[in-house]
Amino acid sequence: MSLNTFGHVFRVTTWGESHGPALGAVVDGCPPGVPLAEADLQVWLDRRKPGQSRYVTQRREPDAVEILSGVFEGRSTGTPIQLLIRNADQRSKDYSEIAGKFRPGHADIAYWQKYGLRDYRGGGRSSARETAARVAAGGVARAALAELAPALSIQGYMVQIGPHPIDRGRFDAEEIARNPFWCPDAQAAEGWADYLDGLRKSGDSAGAMVEVVARGVPEGLGAPVYGKLDADLAAAMMSINAVKGVEIGEGMAAAALTGSANADEIFMGNDGRPAYASNHAGGILGGISTGQDVVVRFAVKPTSSILTPRRTITTAGEPAEIVTKGRHDPCVGIRAVPVGEAMMACVLLDHLLLDRAQTGGARGPIG
Amino acid sequence: MSLNTFGHVFRVTTWGESHGPALGAVVDGCPPGVPLAEADLQVWLDRRKPGQSRYVTQRREPDAVEILSGVFEGRSTGTPIQLLIRNADQRSKDYSEIAGKFRPGHADIAYWQKYGLRDYRGGGRSSARETAARVAAGGVARAALAELAPALSIQGYMVQIGPHPIDRGRFDAEEIARNPFWCPDAQAAEGWADYLDGLRKSGDSAGAMVEVVARGVPEGLGAPVYGKLDADLAAAMMSINAVKGVEIGEGMAAAALTGSANADEIFMGNDGRPAYASNHAGGILGGISTGQDVVVRFAVKPTSSILTPRRTITTAGEPAEIVTKGRHDPCVGIRAVPVGEAMMACVLLDHLLLDRAQTGGARGPIG
Amino acid sequence: MSLNTFGHVFRVTTWGESHGPALGAVVDGCPPGVPLAEADLQVWLDRRKPGQSRYVTQRREPDAVEILSGVFEGRSTGTPIQLLIRNADQRSKDYSEIAGKFRPGHADIAYWQKYGLRDYRGGGRSSARETAARVAAGGVARAALAELAPALSIQGYMVQIGPHPIDRGRFDAEEIARNPFWCPDAQAAEGWADYLDGLRKSGDSAGAMVEVVARGVPEGLGAPVYGKLDADLAAAMMSINAVKGVEIGEGMAAAALTGSANADEIFMGNDGRPAYASNHAGGILGGISTGQDVVVRFAVKPTSSILTPRRTITTAGEPAEIVTKGRHDPCVGIRAVPVGEAMMACVLLDHLLLDRAQTGGARGPIG
Amino acid sequence: MSLNTFGHVFRVTTWGESHGPALGAVVDGCPPGVPLAEADLQVWLDRRKPGQSRYVTQRREPDAVEILSGVFEGRSTGTPIQLLIRNADQRSKDYSEIAGKFRPGHADIAYWQKYGLRDYRGGGRSSARETAARVAAGGVARAALAELAPALSIQGYMVQIGPHPIDRGRFDAEEIARNPFWCPDAQAAEGWADYLDGLRKSGDSAGAMVEVVARGVPEGLGAPVYGKLDADLAAAMMSINAVKGVEIGEGMAAAALTGSANADEIFMGNDGRPAYASNHAGGILGGISTGQDVVVRFAVKPTSSILTPRRTITTAGEPAEIVTKGRHDPCVGIRAVPVGEAMMACVLLDHLLLDRAQTGGARGPIG
Repeated sequence: MSLNTFGHVFRVTTWGESHGPALGAVVDGCPPGVPLAEADLQVWLDRRKPGQSRYVTQRREPDAVEILSGVFEGRSTGTPIQLLIRNADQRSKDYSEIAGKFRPGHADIAYWQKYGLRDYRGGGRSSARETAARVAAGGVARAALAELAPALSIQGYMVQIGPHPIDRGRFDAEEIARNPFWCPDAQAAEGWADYLDGLRKSGDSAGAMVEVVARGVPEGLGAPVYGKLDADLAAAMMSINAVKGVEIGEGMAAAALTGSANADEIFMGNDGRPAYASNHAGGILGGISTGQDVVVRFAVKPTSSILTPRRTITTAGEPAEIVTKGRHDPCVGIRAVPVGEAMMACVLLDHLLLDRAQTGGARGPIG
Repeated sequence: MSLNTFGHVFRVTTWGESHGPALGAVVDGCPPGVPLAEADLQVWLDRRKPGQSRYVTQRREPDAVEILSGVFEGRSTGTPIQLLIRNADQRSKDYSEIAGKFRPGHADIAYWQKYGLRDYRGGGRSSARETAARVAAGGVARAALAELAPALSIQGYMVQIGPHPIDRGRFDAEEIARNPFWCPDAQAAEGWADYLDGLRKSGDSAGAMVEVVARGVPEGLGAPVYGKLDADLAAAMMSINAVKGVEIGEGMAAAALTGSANADEIFMGNDGRPAYASNHAGGILGGISTGQDVVVRFAVKPTSSILTPRRTITTAGEPAEIVTKGRHDPCVGIRAVPVGEAMMACVLLDHLLLDRAQTGGARGPIG
Repeated sequence: MSLNTFGHVFRVTTWGESHGPALGAVVDGCPPGVPLAEADLQVWLDRRKPGQSRYVTQRREPDAVEILSGVFEGRSTGTPIQLLIRNADQRSKDYSEIAGKFRPGHADIAYWQKYGLRDYRGGGRSSARETAARVAAGGVARAALAELAPALSIQGYMVQIGPHPIDRGRFDAEEIARNPFWCPDAQAAEGWADYLDGLRKSGDSAGAMVEVVARGVPEGLGAPVYGKLDADLAAAMMSINAVKGVEIGEGMAAAALTGSANADEIFMGNDGRPAYASNHAGGILGGISTGQDVVVRFAVKPTSSILTPRRTITTAGEPAEIVTKGRHDPCVGIRAVPVGEAMMACVLLDHLLLDRAQTGGARGPIG
Repeated sequence: MSLNTFGHVFRVTTWGESHGPALGAVVDGCPPGVPLAEADLQVWLDRRKPGQSRYVTQRREPDAVEILSGVFEGRSTGTPIQLLIRNADQRSKDYSEIAGKFRPGHADIAYWQKYGLRDYRGGGRSSARETAARVAAGGVARAALAELAPALSIQGYMVQIGPHPIDRGRFDAEEIARNPFWCPDAQAAEGWADYLDGLRKSGDSAGAMVEVVARGVPEGLGAPVYGKLDADLAAAMMSINAVKGVEIGEGMAAAALTGSANADEIFMGNDGRPAYASNHAGGILGGISTGQDVVVRFAVKPTSSILTPRRTITTAGEPAEIVTKGRHDPCVGIRAVPVGEAMMACVLLDHLLLDRAQTGGARGPIG
């Protein structure tokens, strides 16, 4: 990851601000010959786009993606793929409130301090709109993975909103698409609706925790020791707006375990490949995928743009109070679900390509 | 981070295995003119080296570091600094147990699957011995930071071993160096001693949680959106052996907060610079340092090499049981404390240099 | 340089094909606060754009550049700058001649061999149209250099077309903009016009040699030993379409010199800085700029798309003859002049930023 | 190429100075399972090492290479390979002449200007001794290529010393190893001996031109447009000490050609693969290898450390005269021959791995 680019050999560079004419991504290093059309990407963007429920921003953006390069006669050519998404709903508004004051908990002050100026319209580059470009790029990664690792699938879902986690005993993958929260626990989803409605009314916002699982991941992905698969996943997820923590498998809870409890015992599966009695490791050992499900979780802090008044300062250093009006996500974590999936797709494809660069798929036979 | 190198412009490449003749790091991009001697680095290595208490591996390694290049007449020249640490205690032993079997929870099987062969002596490249090279490189970073950001200080300490966290109400920074656990809570340290003694006797091991705090960090460090300071810290910490989770500031707990509770309110400090009513953000907003303390936590899973018998398979795919004798850390998290500090130092220096590349220290005046 | 990106900290990623809807560049790492408008870039693009004389392709492209991101209220924000150039003149034509046959000397066959498919319309990604994006990016670099190194200037010109070099005794910088060849020797320009007219009539094309000189380059730029300034310039120029050789200072002729003849003797200039009796070095010693003029030359092979029939094969491996109609440059080297300037600007800015990252402008005092 | 590292996925980082205790290279990304022993590398180092004739430096260095990591039981493990070469002949001498004065044409002044200090002993990092590390790394690349592309061979030789080129009509590959100049033309070699003897006596030195040819290069290597194979070769060769120009195939002479003369006509070879009537392209079209011989040439300027007195300045800015005694190469280009071969090997392996990352060896069938 370097400035606005991530990936070793499948490299994604995003650009664009919240209220500029457009934003997008250049996807470089995509294998040639991958079937690819705008509709293949739009399906993922449609899952992230705003305005789909009252729990996300009411900004109206079609998030229609255009492929400007790198695809010829329906297939990737191996050259850079430019994905462009026009900003449609740049509603004219009065920015005086946030132009001259810093929202507590927001990147406002940090951008100002670093760059000496900032595009305050909608958060500029620090806006979560940037993640639309990630989702588009993730769509390209998924298309390539469908060719190179057809058994691989990726699913993200919400495991907690505010202080309310799901009950994993009620986990039902079918539920995920049935509620506006990507929640696999129908009962939890109902509680979240009430919780968020209450927060919305009081002008507040909620944090969230997202889990992304990749199944059918080929073994051997990850380049120890600084290109470890988990290190790259950690960076990828932490780079998403508002993320404050990333876990692999057992995550922070690993601290409380003993070695005997943490060890995923190994046996031979019916398919003649290693199988495991548990998955505390989250599918990664020594930075390398083992073939088990890769399990990543990340926490998204609550939106900083809230109606509740907060104390702050102006750019002139004067004390002030701020109330952020506008169309903000009551729980920005909700739209982070498809973003987390996209980052998982990009990282896995990148490591699949990097692994075949070095090893060409050399594998130690077991059994 | 790329293969065995990390950093954008201050770049560290480590090399070496547990039981080869030596290991080390090439440190590239160090500013010229930094006062640097082997003794300056040795002080940090001495904090990580094994055999200093019964709670860490009993392998006897002096971990003496030699500077082979990049320093002339006591100062860095700006050219690559090669740091070499010889392996002294490569005790001859019978590796048949681990050569042919995979330790559950260990990188053994993943290296085998990826590379088709592996150096099974002491874990080869996946051994925590690699972290000695990080600590040496971190010493170089600290020396450079002492010149470029003299107010900056870094301190790591343990906040949890097994299920036993410290009581933050008893936090005493003076205690950290007084016990073998880097524990700031004297009472917790006593409990940990008992807990680990019990585990050692039963042939088991314990996880741990480390916190690293950097004070006096210049504002404006971090290159959004994929070179964010927190994304790089997440990758850096996750790349340390056995780490399964990384948090910035509030971390995973941010999921449970409301926006009003999470917002660190801003006012003008007595020094004429922005100050904050709290530090949920962990010193980073939008991927950029704000000048508040940068606070990172990471969880270290329990050592996988334990005396408790576990079920596994052989390289031939046969079922087996494994007991790992040898000199292993009952709690590998303890020695991760100086490693976490080293990674913090490297990442902060790298971003300080990267920031002065792009902005030259341009800063938005406040007040 | 990596896939479609070049630069260490000032990083340019280009994308787009000859006959797609658009092409462009993402410019990352630009310092914040640089005054920048589309008109500032257009002036450079206008120098490269086709159709300005009968010696270049007759394709009609306005090459109008749009800034889609990274600029706010007339200044760069420090975030990625997306530069978009729409393809206007994608004249519908019959591609059957080149779709199924390979042009000798052209990238056709290599793209086919590498990627297994290719966008044959106008050469796809291998088209010299890609260089429009370089010129736009170079415009950004020039704007930043104007702030950071105001004394620095860059000038490219033609020193040879076909077998006809200029006479350096007649060198007149004022002439460069007065003829369609960027030729500093008015008499040579006349000869070239006749030479190229003859070749055009016979359906052939001509090679060329371009020289680019940067004056006022700060001393100390270049990161030995693999980020040397000359190594990066060599890569930058060699990456331009059709370039087959790159020279710094004396270049290939250095082979024939003795050490005593090659040494640029040093004395103190009237400005209290080192001066040199000659510039065989081309302004670079040990990969680092000395403050002398940086002098780069590169050879551009003749256009491969010619009317003269050549023997080739079809994609089916059948022998064939090929004649390339269409709007091709009789001497593609002519439009390479502004491209070479743009690459020089990008490389110098990148190294200026990289140098201030590492050294912060530390300089050994002389005198 | 970045600071002291080159390569995309096969990455070489060199370190070390002329008069430090040792120098070396970390080779990262080597495929696992490659048979590798120190003797395999020593054979290449022995070709470059000093003191083998009166035409190179008389410094006595065994240049014995030690493999400190990354090899286990005779095979590469896929982890970093540290190659260490101790400096043996750091003869104590009086450096006052060069410590306080700058040698014209040498990196002395540039290092001083950039870093504010320099290791003046033997040129420090700017010494050609650094190239020993390249040759060792090149040995690793050759071992990997022997596995992955067994038909590939690399040969370097001298084509010109001073103003005296070889006669290509007398080219005899058998001659190359029979004279101290790597000269394929026995008669030219005799003339060079006389020429260099004369220069040595007069305290002067000579430039040279080296050609490196790779045969059996797989088609499809090179990542347009900024990871082009020729761009990477240009950077690799230009980064070698004292190189001032790099050519691919026809090189600078391409400027003088017409399109019809330059086009390498294509037909089907007897082996069912494309063949070419000529090789003006030097085996690379559009930045991608075609399967033809890859032909690179580079010019090496004459050694700057000469006995002939030259005018210069001191670090205090005083005018001075300098005469460089010591053990310097009368023609440093001679030892550049094995260095150029090593760089070719590294670049080709790197691109072979990078190509299989992206394309997996996808190839457009011809015939």
